[in-house]
Amino acid sequence: MNNNEAVEEPRPPEYERLGARALTSTLISREVPPECHPLGPHNKVVIAPGLLGGTAAPCCNKLSVGAKSPLTGGIKESNVGGRMAYRMARLRIAAIIIEGQSDHFHPHVIIVGAKRTVVERADDLVGLGNYELHKKLQERHGPNAAILSIGPAGELRLGAACLMANDLDDHPCRAAARGGLGAVMGAKGVKAIVIPHSTAEKPLQITDAEKFKTLAHEFGEKLRKSGEPLTKWGTAVMVDAANAMQGLPTRNFHSGSFEGAEKINAATLVKTIEERGGESSSACTPGCPIRCSNVYNDPDKKYMTSSLEYETICMMGSNLGIDNLDVIARLDRACDDAGLDTIETGATLGVAMETGLINFGDGEASLKLIHEVSKGTIMGRAIGSGVTVFSRIMGIDRIPAVKGQSMPAYDPRTFKGMGVTFASSPMGADHTAGPAIPGRKGLDTSKEIASTQPEGQVELSRDLQVLMALLDQLGFCMFVGPEARNLPVFADFLKALYGWELSEKDLLEMGRSVLRLERDFNRKAGVCEPDSLPDWLRTEPSPPSGRVFDVDINQIRKMEF
Amino acid sequence: MNNNEAVEEPRPPEYERLGARALTSTLISREVPPECHPLGPHNKVVIAPGLLGGTAAPCCNKLSVGAKSPLTGGIKESNVGGRMAYRMARLRIAAIIIEGQSDHFHPHVIIVGAKRTVVERADDLVGLGNYELHKKLQERHGPNAAILSIGPAGELRLGAACLMANDLDDHPCRAAARGGLGAVMGAKGVKAIVIPHSTAEKPLQITDAEKFKTLAHEFGEKLRKSGEPLTKWGTAVMVDAANAMQGLPTRNFHSGSFEGAEKINAATLVKTIEERGGESSSACTPGCPIRCSNVYNDPDKKYMTSSLEYETICMMGSNLGIDNLDVIARLDRACDDAGLDTIETGATLGVAMETGLINFGDGEASLKLIHEVSKGTIMGRAIGSGVTVFSRIMGIDRIPAVKGQSMPAYDPRTFKGMGVTFASSPMGADHTAGPAIPGRKGLDTSKEIASTQPEGQVELSRDLQVLMALLDQLGFCMFVGPEARNLPVFADFLKALYGWELSEKDLLEMGRSVLRLERDFNRKAGVCEPDSLPDWLRTEPSPPSGRVFDVDINQIRKMEF
Repeated sequence: MNNNEAVEEPRPPEYERLGARALTSTLISREVPPECHPLGPHNKVVIAPGLLGGTAAPCCNKLSVGAKSPLTGGIKESNVGGRMAYRMARLRIAAIIIEGQSDHFHPHVIIVGAKRTVVERADDLVGLGNYELHKKLQERHGPNAAILSIGPAGELRLGAACLMANDLDDHPCRAAARGGLGAVMGAKGVKAIVIPHSTAEKPLQITDAEKFKTLAHEFGEKLRKSGEPLTKWGTAVMVDAANAMQGLPTRNFHSGSFEGAEKINAATLVKTIEERGGESSSACTPGCPIRCSNVYNDPDKKYMTSSLEYETICMMGSNLGIDNLDVIARLDRACDDAGLDTIETGATLGVAMETGLINFGDGEASLKLIHEVSKGTIMGRAIGSGVTVFSRIMGIDRIPAVKGQSMPAYDPRTFKGMGVTFASSPMGADHTAGPAIPGRKGLDTSKEIASTQPEGQVELSRDLQVLMALLDQLGFCMFVGPEARNLPVFADFLKALYGWELSEKDLLEMGRSVLRLERDFNRKAGVCEPDSLPDWLRTEPSPPSGRVFDVDINQIRKMEF
Repeated sequence: MNNNEAVEEPRPPEYERLGARALTSTLISREVPPECHPLGPHNKVVIAPGLLGGTAAPCCNKLSVGAKSPLTGGIKESNVGGRMAYRMARLRIAAIIIEGQSDHFHPHVIIVGAKRTVVERADDLVGLGNYELHKKLQERHGPNAAILSIGPAGELRLGAACLMANDLDDHPCRAAARGGLGAVMGAKGVKAIVIPHSTAEKPLQITDAEKFKTLAHEFGEKLRKSGEPLTKWGTAVMVDAANAMQGLPTRNFHSGSFEGAEKINAATLVKTIEERGGESSSACTPGCPIRCSNVYNDPDKKYMTSSLEYETICMMGSNLGIDNLDVIARLDRACDDAGLDTIETGATLGVAMETGLINFGDGEASLKLIHEVSKGTIMGRAIGSGVTVFSRIMGIDRIPAVKGQSMPAYDPRTFKGMGVTFASSPMGADHTAGPAIPGRKGLDTSKEIASTQPEGQVELSRDLQVLMALLDQLGFCMFVGPEARNLPVFADFLKALYGWELSEKDLLEMGRSVLRLERDFNRKAGVCEPDSLPDWLRTEPSPPSGRVFDVDINQIRKMEF
């Protein structure tokens, strides 16, 4: 971006076996000085599809976005659905690396073409929300373009800024949400990356095409079956589950139980969507048989937002004392438009409510604060900077954040394995980094570990982190399952596609090595021990369960990958 | 503060040889969980005079205030003049420890009495600036009381909040400035600590009173002589020196040379003060023969502020492009009143100017922003949170801060030893932690090290940090001199006062051991490597000298105490 030019380079041989998170984290580890400022010229944004991206394997088209995070100060990978991973893979693009820095943060659009990629100055797009922006870009570059963009929050380089991708219906609603990576793209002076539909694809080379097809079909059928609850209810299915376990973050994590849960749970969501002619099940990436996303219409049956996910429903709902899905949907749309992570923003609004700046349950006031972000007022900047900075401004010590990044919608006092993940993951408090939800098992599948017991959570979280680091490089969605029993399937896929012979141990080592290099980067960047959660989670019992987070901190600190 | 009660405890024998910073840092190391939030109930504020405090030794009545810092997240000691150290020592109070947390941050005043210390609720003092507050407290508790207090910034628990002590003329103008410790006192619910003049002193026990008297006289004479330039010009003497060396932070560290330096240098300052009937030389503590402070009157010869020090003159002057001492004096007074560190606030205003929020050179706009802090608006909170948080809100990557705390008025590209101190000190960017100003030597006094050369600065900074850690526990002001040749004098003082037989090696070990335990605390608190300065100091040459900070980072990281 120093000269606003795009250069194409062949993939060096040592990167051949790296996809998505493995590639983003390796490139950042090697090319970004750990001590650099995340918004400075030395940080890089790396965007990469997974090793299976572009194929007919199910649920394998997540796109990884990596950079040094403005929130954690450490390395970050955030992944997102939409069309771009599939499109990049079909174009045989291993990664897009945005480096350097454009003068004065003029917005640019990177248009990826089959022959040539260009960087265009786009002053007319300054300050646009993602909805208007995507509309303009689709007009300009043709329908069905794959787009990855930032809203005003990213242009302002704020800590809660995310990158938004269009979904298969061209709504700008899929977020590479966590870690503030939209601010890094904003700091580069890039408003959007577009891959027009007209860009000609190249055929994939598949070592054993027949075998791959069979595998894809079989695994797809399996996921279709195992994913039925998600297909029917979406991720909102967690609302009742978390509430029943008294671990649903409610009113700034002051309770694990929300009296309005029934009004925002999956049953109400699906019923509302269906009454209004929305879609209760839609795919966020090409080739997904689970289709856990949705399209939410307003009472007049007009499109309002997509997709209402568990994290948003909780962090913008129960966490704010809001029990109205229409209000949550408006907040979600406002965040998507501004380019704000709904998790980080929900946590921030929760603290704003705690301080009395606005009242718990006040959706209109929350919406106003989100709109302030797009306006770039000091209040908006404060809200858009995320919960840690906002809490600093408000003089608050009870911050629902780890390593500068807000916790997602799992109270660690109930979901103790999730708490271990938040504390120990190189990603910080990120539920997808090691999703220890109830029922999950580690590599020793004989062990059943209840979410509420402290014992065994360190091993469980570690195993899930390793498995997720593997899924994240193949391009798989979390809902494929970070499970030991899937390892042979993954090996089969890689063999059929590339001809690689990989043992289960090899696959696990692929996950572990990424985690190790991420940790190493963090250590050099000054993001190191203690791997701990905020102290109030250990001292303040969560009503009504009375639980505290009581996993042995020394065990967490001893975790090795 | 949980129950708003004061409890007196005898000093445990193992603390007998610890004074000031050694005592504050030891108590915090032992009693404050490193991972706790600085504004939470588990942090403590420890206030302690030095080992020589209360005696007739010259310049030995600095008061140490310690806590886990809201800015750096590490251990912090900030020291301050005024009456309190002397008074505490004469009352035989080794330390005041403020722990726990009062509900809802009601302001309280701790009144230290010879017989009983009480904690009084003081709702009528809410939100008062330090000028009005000290006036009320002097009325209430009698003249010549020793006061240590916070302004609105501390009550709001903001990162740039300091503690203010009254000077010998009862102006509330001496600051325990750095590290945001005023926010910690605010979080405890303590607005002020008062030791009334009426509180009866106890006689000090001096092992060899005659010898001590002689030593004090001789050392006082020596300091009177060596301190002559400081007596005449005050610390403002550094303005010309730093400007001549092209290392005077100017316009947010964009230059090391200020075209208006002559208008704010020591000569202009002293001339202005004398024309207006102020005091160009006054003492900030009882028993100081150097008297480097001053009292600055307005054009109508009425008291405006005291004392205009180098750090304030630069950070609120050249760093903001302001070349008018009256404007600087008004900014200084506004900061003292609000209870804001002028260094941190000057750096923050510099970034506000860089972003275009206000213009370089605009004193009135700067003053308004400081007043916003006292009003508690979001803008005021943002400014009062210090330069790192403010820069996060403004999406700025070029931040003049180390470990979350702003750099003071020495550009590390010119003052390279100072840069090493900023990078490596457990205190973060703190000029008094290892003041490698021109002419200073380390323990190997044969070595002369020019400030602008990269070689030798690591050893120089290390030695000065060790010596300052010693001075800081004896209660000595920095201007006594962190010099090897003073070690025998210090040993003589301690022998005459306590009967201790200490070698020079023992004294240095006293310094080293404090630094080691501070580092250890920081490591456990997650404030660890890299010991580095912001990357732009290495890449952006400072005009007009063209210098960058080029001390080998690996050598800095290898520094051991």
